[in-house]
Amino acid sequence: LFRCIILGVYFINMDFSITILGASSALPTANRFPSAQVVKHNESIFLIDCGEGTQMQLRRNKISLLKINHIFISHLHGDHYYGIFGLLTSMNLLGRKKELHLYAPPELRRILNYIWKQTGIQLLYEVVFHVHNYSGFNLIADCKHMQVFSFPLSHSKQNCGFKFCEKQSVANIRKDCIERFELGIVDVRRIKAGAGIYLIDGTYIDNKELTHHAPEPRTYTYCSDTVFVESLNTVIGNTDLLYHEATFAGEANDLAIATGHSTSIQAAHVAKQLSAKALILGHFSTRYTDVGFLQQEAETIFKPVFLAEDNAEFAINRITRATVQVK
Amino acid sequence: LFRCIILGVYFINMDFSITILGASSALPTANRFPSAQVVKHNESIFLIDCGEGTQMQLRRNKISLLKINHIFISHLHGDHYYGIFGLLTSMNLLGRKKELHLYAPPELRRILNYIWKQTGIQLLYEVVFHVHNYSGFNLIADCKHMQVFSFPLSHSKQNCGFKFCEKQSVANIRKDCIERFELGIVDVRRIKAGAGIYLIDGTYIDNKELTHHAPEPRTYTYCSDTVFVESLNTVIGNTDLLYHEATFAGEANDLAIATGHSTSIQAAHVAKQLSAKALILGHFSTRYTDVGFLQQEAETIFKPVFLAEDNAEFAINRITRATVQVK
Repeated sequence: LFRCIILGVYFINMDFSITILGASSALPTANRFPSAQVVKHNESIFLIDCGEGTQMQLRRNKISLLKINHIFISHLHGDHYYGIFGLLTSMNLLGRKKELHLYAPPELRRILNYIWKQTGIQLLYEVVFHVHNYSGFNLIADCKHMQVFSFPLSHSKQNCGFKFCEKQSVANIRKDCIERFELGIVDVRRIKAGAGIYLIDGTYIDNKELTHHAPEPRTYTYCSDTVFVESLNTVIGNTDLLYHEATFAGEANDLAIATGHSTSIQAAHVAKQLSAKALILGHFSTRYTDVGFLQQEAETIFKPVFLAEDNAEFAINRITRATVQVK
Repeated sequence: LFRCIILGVYFINMDFSITILGASSALPTANRFPSAQVVKHNESIFLIDCGEGTQMQLRRNKISLLKINHIFISHLHGDHYYGIFGLLTSMNLLGRKKELHLYAPPELRRILNYIWKQTGIQLLYEVVFHVHNYSGFNLIADCKHMQVFSFPLSHSKQNCGFKFCEKQSVANIRKDCIERFELGIVDVRRIKAGAGIYLIDGTYIDNKELTHHAPEPRTYTYCSDTVFVESLNTVIGNTDLLYHEATFAGEANDLAIATGHSTSIQAAHVAKQLSAKALILGHFSTRYTDVGFLQQEAETIFKPVFLAEDNAEFAINRITRATVQVK
């Protein structure tokens, strides 16, 4: 009985949050590290991009390097991957044994192997390399509670966005039913799988009466770097939370196109297109020390808009699927 | 006359300082970046080692990336060079045209070329590569006011230390003499080169009476990473200021030897051996959150001892050649 209750609590507390480790564009500043962020989902920690300084930012945010088992690198501009060398060697120094899954462009595997060879490094753990496919919407990581898909973006370098789709969670058994019907572990398992129960007097109790309704799975989408992509929704569907690069302000539209980037206005249009419940803007140009006006611009098109400050954390509510900034 | 006075002021203010960008050992922490530091000498900025995050630390310390023309990499353990990729590409993005001198192990040239090729980067400036010689005391950079020498250390990887030797500055002309003897620019030049002057009545005024005595040139030595090196003074001579790694406390002597590092006690012995006027300890193991006791240990052997905290700055006085911590 005790174990069943524990299980119930476990599911109610399943967190889904995004921690920004860096949100600068190509040039970092004194206050903005280059691109990196972690997706926390319950006990799992996924790393998206790994700009220089990621391992220091992980430590600042008290996120264990060894708990990261999946790293997704969007593309090979330095501000999105120059931190991978330090992170992988630090994992090695910390005694990592568990395999690490790295989803990245094929050149990264060659670069890593070259550096390890030139400097005599032999990792004590396996890096399982998953090479990007730059067409279509592809399931690239199928984990216990989460599926991750890649899709092509449009940038000056081949680039993938990532969509994190929580798996449908099993229904939570109502605590009062466990006591009322004296349910055992086997009963609980069956009910979680969708079964009803027969009482001794033959009465049938439907699954719906024994469980709380399992909420809709939540989704998070990462788009950086890219120009404005038309009809992205036809490729990846809707999303609850969208992180979209907004390197430039609305008035710098031509510059955005010329450099393969987006404006705050365009990011807001993508959020609208994907029926997002919230938008996080990031990857800011160093020309903007105060990025508050990018938020204001975007909010003329779509609300709510958050700003990706380093070390900020955003959580997606399990029931409403709305996003709040938690730090 | 005006120009002569300006020249005088210029020499009096010739600074010589060390700014610590990072002083952690192999693993960085939330508060300690990996190894990197800048030597500022008047208008020149030299970078020693370039651990991950160096370019962010340079920005925090308001040091222009483009003013760095000489980078010295001691050895190819990641905590001493993983920041070079980001620094060089950021210099490129900032429009650098001036050549950059890089003093490093030969493998670094191959690694850089490989990464640039794999990711399609073409630097707009020339990197002049100077490959380390791992024997003897070698003049590797002969700049206007500074000479830099390399010398071998003893570590688990081939490694060089560096000694920065200020060139003998010319004598400063006494301001009162300029007015009293109505000296012109040509006179001043001659006097700076060591000449005396004849007055109209034939009186000879010796150079010593016209000038302030030029102080002894200052020296700074960087030793990281290394085990304790016996008789280093016979190779590199004395030094005013010594930065020496102190990865471990005195009691961890065996561990220091096994990992190719030094203890705080050994660092102090090297300072004594080199007749240093001050010692900075750095490259601390993550096992020590508070490193104050390493300083206390070292001060039982040698004084004064400073701790290399990130963003600390140490200046060597021009006259006394003693070191003070300025921030």
